[in-house]
Amino acid sequence: MFYMIGLGLGDAKDITVKGLEAVRRCSRVYLEAYTSVLTVGKEVLEEFYERKLILADREEVEQEADNILKDADISDVAFLVVGDPFGATTHSALILRATKLGIPYRVIHNASIMNAVGCCGLQLYKFGETVSIVFWTDTWKPESFFDRVKKNRQNGTHTLCLLDIKVKEQSVENLIRGRKIYEPPRYMSVNQAAQQLLEIVQNQRIRGEEPAVTEETLCVGLARVGAEDQKIAAGTLQQMSTVDLGGPLHSLIITGGSLHPLEMEMLSLFTIPENSSESQRTGGP
Amino acid sequence: MFYMIGLGLGDAKDITVKGLEAVRRCSRVYLEAYTSVLTVGKEVLEEFYERKLILADREEVEQEADNILKDADISDVAFLVVGDPFGATTHSALILRATKLGIPYRVIHNASIMNAVGCCGLQLYKFGETVSIVFWTDTWKPESFFDRVKKNRQNGTHTLCLLDIKVKEQSVENLIRGRKIYEPPRYMSVNQAAQQLLEIVQNQRIRGEEPAVTEETLCVGLARVGAEDQKIAAGTLQQMSTVDLGGPLHSLIITGGSLHPLEMEMLSLFTIPENSSESQRTGGP
Repeated sequence: MFYMIGLGLGDAKDITVKGLEAVRRCSRVYLEAYTSVLTVGKEVLEEFYERKLILADREEVEQEADNILKDADISDVAFLVVGDPFGATTHSALILRATKLGIPYRVIHNASIMNAVGCCGLQLYKFGETVSIVFWTDTWKPESFFDRVKKNRQNGTHTLCLLDIKVKEQSVENLIRGRKIYEPPRYMSVNQAAQQLLEIVQNQRIRGEEPAVTEETLCVGLARVGAEDQKIAAGTLQQMSTVDLGGPLHSLIITGGSLHPLEMEMLSLFTIPENSSESQRTGGP
Repeated sequence: MFYMIGLGLGDAKDITVKGLEAVRRCSRVYLEAYTSVLTVGKEVLEEFYERKLILADREEVEQEADNILKDADISDVAFLVVGDPFGATTHSALILRATKLGIPYRVIHNASIMNAVGCCGLQLYKFGETVSIVFWTDTWKPESFFDRVKKNRQNGTHTLCLLDIKVKEQSVENLIRGRKIYEPPRYMSVNQAAQQLLEIVQNQRIRGEEPAVTEETLCVGLARVGAEDQKIAAGTLQQMSTVDLGGPLHSLIITGGSLHPLEMEMLSLFTIPENSSESQRTGGP
């Protein structure tokens, strides 16, 4: 059996009882290590799961799926994913490959950022399409995702922005020279995302467009959702560019305009105090 | 501490290890019993959790929150929710009440239908606003949710339809006579939802409107997501009105038009064979 097991969002104990039992039955256990991270490292997971974990990067999952699936028809193999297994499209490809090879599979679900963002009080059913915000470079500053934010806001729906993760990236120099030397991982912060968004707003004004979002648009920054030291801050997009939410992972929500009174009241638990860019009331997990 | 703990979607073992440890620390444990159900009953949960569960219906949660929260500042109290705690708005109200009473709270997340629907292969980030489809009566046949389906389809996003659950409902007669006698629980099936949708399509045609959805629109029916006997069927809305997915809970997805090749390929695993209204290939969990 090939198991795709969600690990949830916090630490080793966020796996489900069913997931843990499956992991401990498996002869090989892979840990997907490029779409998200937990607050604890591989060693902590290995100790708790009582299994050695094989780190699987994007290359391996996308190009060497058959290695991962090897013998899963005669023994049990697990593929662990932070959050829920269907957060990333590459995982669907693994299921399709397993099916083609005649290997039975089982999915053990868990919380992912897609549903856990509900903890800020915004109602999940009122979210529109999700967008990803990538790190800009000097020469590549994509703005196209902003159209979807606009549509969501026109429909009165919130936008969850998933923020970029760069793991196992090579510098241009190392890439050219074919050196397998990787840069340290980078995780986009709410500050960085907000700064890029503010730049898009400016660009739209320069082009004479009416921006769907302004400096004053109500946003919610979330950090380490599901972990003990989770932080949530509600404030304007401008405030998001300076609020201190601590370490990764971060996510950003752009609200959809009119809020339900219950949403307003929940967000008020996390409102950034005026005249404060450093400290803010933040919610416990 | 007041714990809000998600139970996931399948059975007793879909709770997280962290959630189980918290439950076993608590002096009082409530089970929210009106927005969703697991495939196992209260007794099975009690045996596995090693705790007596107090069933909490909508009335109690909404009107007697203070009873639930009583002494949670000096002892540990848990409130268990099928899926994730933030699936329903009433649970935000409990958090707000706890905060007002100065009671610290902790949320332990889990999978919910909002993210677990990804198992059918449709990409989660491409879902628009979620809608609820309620049981029609002879005199009340709301169609307003259909506007949101229309908007989603115009934007090329999928619509997750949450199907009605009637728990602890009184007949009109018993309501009038003040008799606390309750009807057996009812869970809307994909068939029933599709039949109501088909009627809306007909009504729109009669009114001369161009329906956003037709008999031929590609839909996905899901039953008991996350359970061992999960079933998924992909086909037209017309097919959804007769496909047999077995017992509750059911959910329905109306696709958003153009699909990614990977979405198409995943759905093909679950396609209802032609000339078959009874049997279909359905996916393992």
